[in-house]
Amino acid sequence: MKTFLLVASLLFASPLAAETINVADHGIVPGKDVTYEVNRLVESVRGRDEITLVFPKGQYDFHPENAIEAYRAVANHDNGLKRMAFPLFDCQNLTIDGSGSTFMFHGRLIPFTIERCQNTKIMNLTIDWVRSFHAELTVVESDPSGKTFVVETDIEKYPYTIKGGEVLFQRYGQDDPIGSNMVFDPETRSPIYDTKRYSINGAQARVTALGEKRFRFDKGVKNSPPVGSVLVVYGVHPTSRLCHAIQITNSKDLSIENVTIHDAGGMGLIVERTENITLDQLVVTSNDERIVATRADATHFIGCKGKIQIENCLFEHMLDDGVNVHGAYVKVERYLGDREFLCEISHFQQWGLTFAEPGDRVALLSRETILPFVEATVQSVKVLNSHRFVMKLDAVPEELPEGPLSVENLTWYPDLVMRNNIIRENRARGVLVTTKGKVLIEDNYFSSQMHGILIEGDNNKWYESGAVGDVTIRHNVFHNVGFEGGAKYPLLAAPLLTSGQRMGEGQYHRNIRFVDNTIESFNGLIVQAKSVSGLVIENNEVKFSPDYPAGDSFPAIDLNYCDDVSIRGNQVDGFGRKLDVKVSADTTNVIMEANPGFQTE
Amino acid sequence: MKTFLLVASLLFASPLAAETINVADHGIVPGKDVTYEVNRLVESVRGRDEITLVFPKGQYDFHPENAIEAYRAVANHDNGLKRMAFPLFDCQNLTIDGSGSTFMFHGRLIPFTIERCQNTKIMNLTIDWVRSFHAELTVVESDPSGKTFVVETDIEKYPYTIKGGEVLFQRYGQDDPIGSNMVFDPETRSPIYDTKRYSINGAQARVTALGEKRFRFDKGVKNSPPVGSVLVVYGVHPTSRLCHAIQITNSKDLSIENVTIHDAGGMGLIVERTENITLDQLVVTSNDERIVATRADATHFIGCKGKIQIENCLFEHMLDDGVNVHGAYVKVERYLGDREFLCEISHFQQWGLTFAEPGDRVALLSRETILPFVEATVQSVKVLNSHRFVMKLDAVPEELPEGPLSVENLTWYPDLVMRNNIIRENRARGVLVTTKGKVLIEDNYFSSQMHGILIEGDNNKWYESGAVGDVTIRHNVFHNVGFEGGAKYPLLAAPLLTSGQRMGEGQYHRNIRFVDNTIESFNGLIVQAKSVSGLVIENNEVKFSPDYPAGDSFPAIDLNYCDDVSIRGNQVDGFGRKLDVKVSADTTNVIMEANPGFQTE
Repeated sequence: MKTFLLVASLLFASPLAAETINVADHGIVPGKDVTYEVNRLVESVRGRDEITLVFPKGQYDFHPENAIEAYRAVANHDNGLKRMAFPLFDCQNLTIDGSGSTFMFHGRLIPFTIERCQNTKIMNLTIDWVRSFHAELTVVESDPSGKTFVVETDIEKYPYTIKGGEVLFQRYGQDDPIGSNMVFDPETRSPIYDTKRYSINGAQARVTALGEKRFRFDKGVKNSPPVGSVLVVYGVHPTSRLCHAIQITNSKDLSIENVTIHDAGGMGLIVERTENITLDQLVVTSNDERIVATRADATHFIGCKGKIQIENCLFEHMLDDGVNVHGAYVKVERYLGDREFLCEISHFQQWGLTFAEPGDRVALLSRETILPFVEATVQSVKVLNSHRFVMKLDAVPEELPEGPLSVENLTWYPDLVMRNNIIRENRARGVLVTTKGKVLIEDNYFSSQMHGILIEGDNNKWYESGAVGDVTIRHNVFHNVGFEGGAKYPLLAAPLLTSGQRMGEGQYHRNIRFVDNTIESFNGLIVQAKSVSGLVIENNEVKFSPDYPAGDSFPAIDLNYCDDVSIRGNQVDGFGRKLDVKVSADTTNVIMEANPGFQTE
Repeated sequence: MKTFLLVASLLFASPLAAETINVADHGIVPGKDVTYEVNRLVESVRGRDEITLVFPKGQYDFHPENAIEAYRAVANHDNGLKRMAFPLFDCQNLTIDGSGSTFMFHGRLIPFTIERCQNTKIMNLTIDWVRSFHAELTVVESDPSGKTFVVETDIEKYPYTIKGGEVLFQRYGQDDPIGSNMVFDPETRSPIYDTKRYSINGAQARVTALGEKRFRFDKGVKNSPPVGSVLVVYGVHPTSRLCHAIQITNSKDLSIENVTIHDAGGMGLIVERTENITLDQLVVTSNDERIVATRADATHFIGCKGKIQIENCLFEHMLDDGVNVHGAYVKVERYLGDREFLCEISHFQQWGLTFAEPGDRVALLSRETILPFVEATVQSVKVLNSHRFVMKLDAVPEELPEGPLSVENLTWYPDLVMRNNIIRENRARGVLVTTKGKVLIEDNYFSSQMHGILIEGDNNKWYESGAVGDVTIRHNVFHNVGFEGGAKYPLLAAPLLTSGQRMGEGQYHRNIRFVDNTIESFNGLIVQAKSVSGLVIENNEVKFSPDYPAGDSFPAIDLNYCDDVSIRGNQVDGFGRKLDVKVSADTTNVIMEANPGFQTE
């Protein structure tokens, strides 16, 4: 009998194990710090299958004092000891269902850390912090001629001290100087037009206290921002990106559904080395009391594979990009012989990244042209430290080319589908994407301060790899894109080269279709492309928008070193002038027809 | 046959496996960075038994770029990512024999990290850094009335920049401000007499450059130090104790023999939770080019057991104590019920310490009197983060006393034997010891700037636990102890209480014998004791030394709240006055006889 029961329980292990747990049964209730209890509950379900943790609707508070902690490298953030509310490690078929609850954080504490999990879902909850990682200062007096201005703030929300002319903001045990800053317009809840004009030199800024919640900027002011505008200040590296909202690494089949993120001392979501992730109704936005949401990108994906699917999402009021999908260019420091390469991670915010594992395909490339010359399979990786590792390949060319080399991981490039999303009113770009996978961006609304969609790739500044090979951008609305001012395009596709780098033979990007989009534009800009082979710009409609100062100093379409380009059937409305198409002498095979309202320069 | 061979190799596994490896056979040779090769070799012998790594005599260079790295908590240091030259984890019967070699370090790189090792020996080598973690500035002009002075330094050895009146020293990628500082006397190679007089206020200090290797201190000067003296500056926490020389944790039967340490950005040796360690001919001293050796203690032991044996060692020129042996007082934050205590590590430089493991005996004590009230056995420990853990005991009293509680680990207190050592010419104390084990300190030479031997115990500042129960200090020479000035004694035994703490019922320390010592003294001080029961001060000889200004403002023997004291047969020579013995009204059972040259106050 005993034997039979044992066999039966083994046979039915999976369905029997499925369980829905009401967290209230584990002492997790509103009105107290639940971190310890949540840590314990999460630990108790580790290794179990088919578990759903249900939080009855309410506000749950999380404090850092008793939270589980680990040293963590987090891509595009500042590495360090992180305390964690939900340390989800090695979970299978786990669902966290907030039932519409708010998870309120009271310190430097990471809401969700998801590592080596499979089929895990976070749903129906809102993440916020009692105190933000930035400060919002309303301009109440402005003296443009004297280059001074006075700000007022809420000292409960944004406590500060002034000492020796320096203002320091208290954020969870940390005194942050002004650092990065940007002026927002409370009318549009966006960065103010041409905001760079007003940027404060944080190192030179000097202030004078005027009562308990006002102070005057006396030095470091380029132009005084207008009365009523809001100066947002958000600190300096390496203390300004310590606390993201959700980190996912080394996982598979993840899903985030109906989740709102109001704040984070970093990104809303950072995903590393993960296969298949779906975001549905993920909302990143400020709460009613603030203009600004997250300190950095809404979502960011590095070295993923499978499919990234982003649908029905709203990303607004971030201090950085909406979506960024890319790989990493890593330096080859030295060839050690015997097929071993000593490699160094190129960007300090990628230190600690898992670049490759045995079985991955990688490409070696010239650091000068960033064009690959050979592919191989990784046999072993020995991590030396957060900067360096030794990678052994299955084969290398008999002779390696002269000059410095880099390496990129070909296995870990995902497909990307973005559909029915809104990205707007944020600093920086809507989407950055550099992946060799298939990219479909359709039926979205973009209204970003810099470029709408940036397809870059650089072995230079951020070392974000991934020359694209198949990108379709269609049926999207681009509304007032580029209100930073200058040459900001709905689509910019061009690798970023250093002065020491040069275009190699053949284009870097391939096959980009920008079709059937609606562009509501004050500046008349559409596409800028460099080093793209197979570029289709067809059937787009460009309508004049009077919302920002009209610009006419840049070409609407600007092509450099491209090949196989089709510009066809694009419409223009309301500009009262022809839009310019500029094609460089080294661009080849361009078909241009049926584009009323356009002219070639 | 095969079977036979297998059985034979199993039978003889241990002796057969013993092996002496010449590191030169693994590419480890003088004249290049050998870190990578040493890391690899160390890894390859992990798990093997009876291995000796022999370095043929020479200078071996270690750079940090390719070194293995891990986040490490290091007691009494600044925790963080540490790169390691010898990451010795889980080794059995391993010997590293340097054959008299010098291991020269070129960056922030920990020479030896020894964890979970048994019977491991480090011998016959010298550890040094090409560039020190402090700077030595020679005073070349001094204007006492103007409170300014000019220093000159070697900009190769101590590179610096001056900006906005602040001087910053470049140390391995780090810009260190003045921070902690102390004036040394190049004649004595010791801190100058009454050095506190000259201490610089690092935060207020302002300097003016005078050519490429000189600068003048204009502000932050209390008293200008004399021309020819050397101002040593050594930075601020948390960037000034990042790089100790040797860390040993969770190990057993360790031995360090004939090893010299010339420098460290921290302690020479820090030992945590280790059973039995022998130091024989460990030398901590400056090299010929510097006055100062390590940034902190020569040796430091926290939460050890078994026996600490220190013989034939020389510790000099450190910027902190010679030897410190103690446990930790940890706060009880809250009783959670069910025999579980939420505990918090009290001192920030103990964050991450392994305080206890299942099976350890602990004592709960009043945080007010620091006297224990109950002992129990640890059943489980759940570490929450580097500050806090939950400890479950096998039993607790039905009622816990009112007021805040602390806990100390009774299992992890070692015996200490110190014999034939010299500790001198350093900042701070010779020896600190608070352990419940048996302590024998004999035939040593002490000449320290503060107390010679400090038996303290505090639940207050450093949270160093361990009321002593059996200490013998005999046949030692105390030479010019206390040249900091003030009431600095060859022996001070007294718990350090906060204003909120009070003496409980009964004494804190017990059974201290200070006998047959020779005290060559400019100030005539011998012993100060508070809350000691069983104190024997017998047959000591006190001779006048003219080396520093004679002091007569403090009692030679000063007793407070002591019991069962014997002061007998002590001799005095050359002071030209009687030495005072002061006994407080609450001291009981004092026998005082045959002490010519002493008088009771």
